[in-house]
Amino acid sequence: MSAAHPQSKLRVGVFDSGFGGLTVLREVLKLLPGADSIYLGDSARLPYGSKSHETIARFAVSSARFLHDQGADLLVVACNTATALAFDEIGAALPIPVIGVVSPGAEAARGASPEGGVLVLATAATVQSGAYSRALRAVGIDAYEKACPLLVPLVEEGWVSHPVTDAVIRIYLDEALKAAPEASTLLLGCTHYPLIEPAIRRVLAGMGRTLAIVDSARATALATARLVAEEFPEAAPAEHPRREFFATDSVAKFQRLGAEFLGQPLDEVKLVDLGG
Amino acid sequence: MSAAHPQSKLRVGVFDSGFGGLTVLREVLKLLPGADSIYLGDSARLPYGSKSHETIARFAVSSARFLHDQGADLLVVACNTATALAFDEIGAALPIPVIGVVSPGAEAARGASPEGGVLVLATAATVQSGAYSRALRAVGIDAYEKACPLLVPLVEEGWVSHPVTDAVIRIYLDEALKAAPEASTLLLGCTHYPLIEPAIRRVLAGMGRTLAIVDSARATALATARLVAEEFPEAAPAEHPRREFFATDSVAKFQRLGAEFLGQPLDEVKLVDLGG
Repeated sequence: MSAAHPQSKLRVGVFDSGFGGLTVLREVLKLLPGADSIYLGDSARLPYGSKSHETIARFAVSSARFLHDQGADLLVVACNTATALAFDEIGAALPIPVIGVVSPGAEAARGASPEGGVLVLATAATVQSGAYSRALRAVGIDAYEKACPLLVPLVEEGWVSHPVTDAVIRIYLDEALKAAPEASTLLLGCTHYPLIEPAIRRVLAGMGRTLAIVDSARATALATARLVAEEFPEAAPAEHPRREFFATDSVAKFQRLGAEFLGQPLDEVKLVDLGG
Repeated sequence: MSAAHPQSKLRVGVFDSGFGGLTVLREVLKLLPGADSIYLGDSARLPYGSKSHETIARFAVSSARFLHDQGADLLVVACNTATALAFDEIGAALPIPVIGVVSPGAEAARGASPEGGVLVLATAATVQSGAYSRALRAVGIDAYEKACPLLVPLVEEGWVSHPVTDAVIRIYLDEALKAAPEASTLLLGCTHYPLIEPAIRRVLAGMGRTLAIVDSARATALATARLVAEEFPEAAPAEHPRREFFATDSVAKFQRLGAEFLGQPLDEVKLVDLGG
């Protein structure tokens, strides 16, 4: 046990409006298997993606503060909407390093050599913020963003392999590829979307289109591991790392749906009241 | 002006998690055109329908308290989910009369003479509460409830007349009518659903089924008018009734979408922070 060196244990905080960020935590745990982790899903106030900048910033900052109060040494904002609309506010509110998913997502898209530009699928709020377009244009890549408000409800309904979901994806992609016909890379700008990546591939194939598909989960985990190596070089892996999960709404539902996103069971989920 | 008789002016409070309750307010204003009204849409924390009893009760009670603090003389809970899960908590928290939509909805269904029983379409939380089944069985009517989680997102996407929405309705109705093949009446147990009533009729026709369709908006307005006549017999109609609208998220979006539900423009919507 490391009780004699409490400063050498690293605690990674990860936050999302719901379950989707667990796909990011999954990748983080692969790269930092010895780190303690603490995850918060703000499920009582989800979805963030249909709401305003002010409301999203208020919810995101209070969620981030909770994880800092619980002892997080760094924070991963594993929510595209919160990153796109409130990254600066979160950073200003916390005295610890903060990583978002937008810049790593843009990096991942650049890695796919998108000569024809990148098509970003995201929530309405993320698209409205223009954060992905700015991040991609900053690295010299043309970007087109498409709001897909129904994809999160369809994933949450469990219709990840369903003709209705395929039909909705087809409508969104039809509209998007009319506006950005040269796009060669598709960036999944919401942590829910990796669960319907097979459906997206199927629909693209049916349309006779071939696009590289990237998401930000793996890239965000790599950025997190890099930051840990730089800022916490003395951090020693825990022998029995703690995995703590908090949710602001029903823990039973979170435990049940969360396992699908994390890829392993969630032993225990604790309820937390962040007001509201 | 009625400044000399402030007690003779009646102020009706109406609350919903979002816009849907405006369909109830519309019916209330038809029957009580001289009443002042104050509406709150708790849009920062919507949807309620996918959340837990505890969270819904917490959100609903704080919303109800806000309307009471603003001077409401009675409260209409124009949200099926809040009524189904938190009617008792709201009633206990306020010293004014409270009306919900479930009992009037059950009355409306009874009026349709449902010999074969009633099929209730509602949110997941409303169905899980069993409130409609209890209310209908109390008046001797067989009930079957069907959760339709995608209908609210489809209405909010504006796809009220759209092949995808028809396909989703068809799936839900297929499943429901397999479980309740004798049902002769369909009760729309969510204030969003009246906007897709034409689609529901179209799908039923395509299935070769004829069911009476009822919703609770009109019945709730009638119950409200009855309560006003009994409890506030001295209430005099205002010459220029005040219509106040509050939302907890983006007032621009509320003003834009709300007009569709109210059937007339919303002159002004004020932002209110209920915490969270």
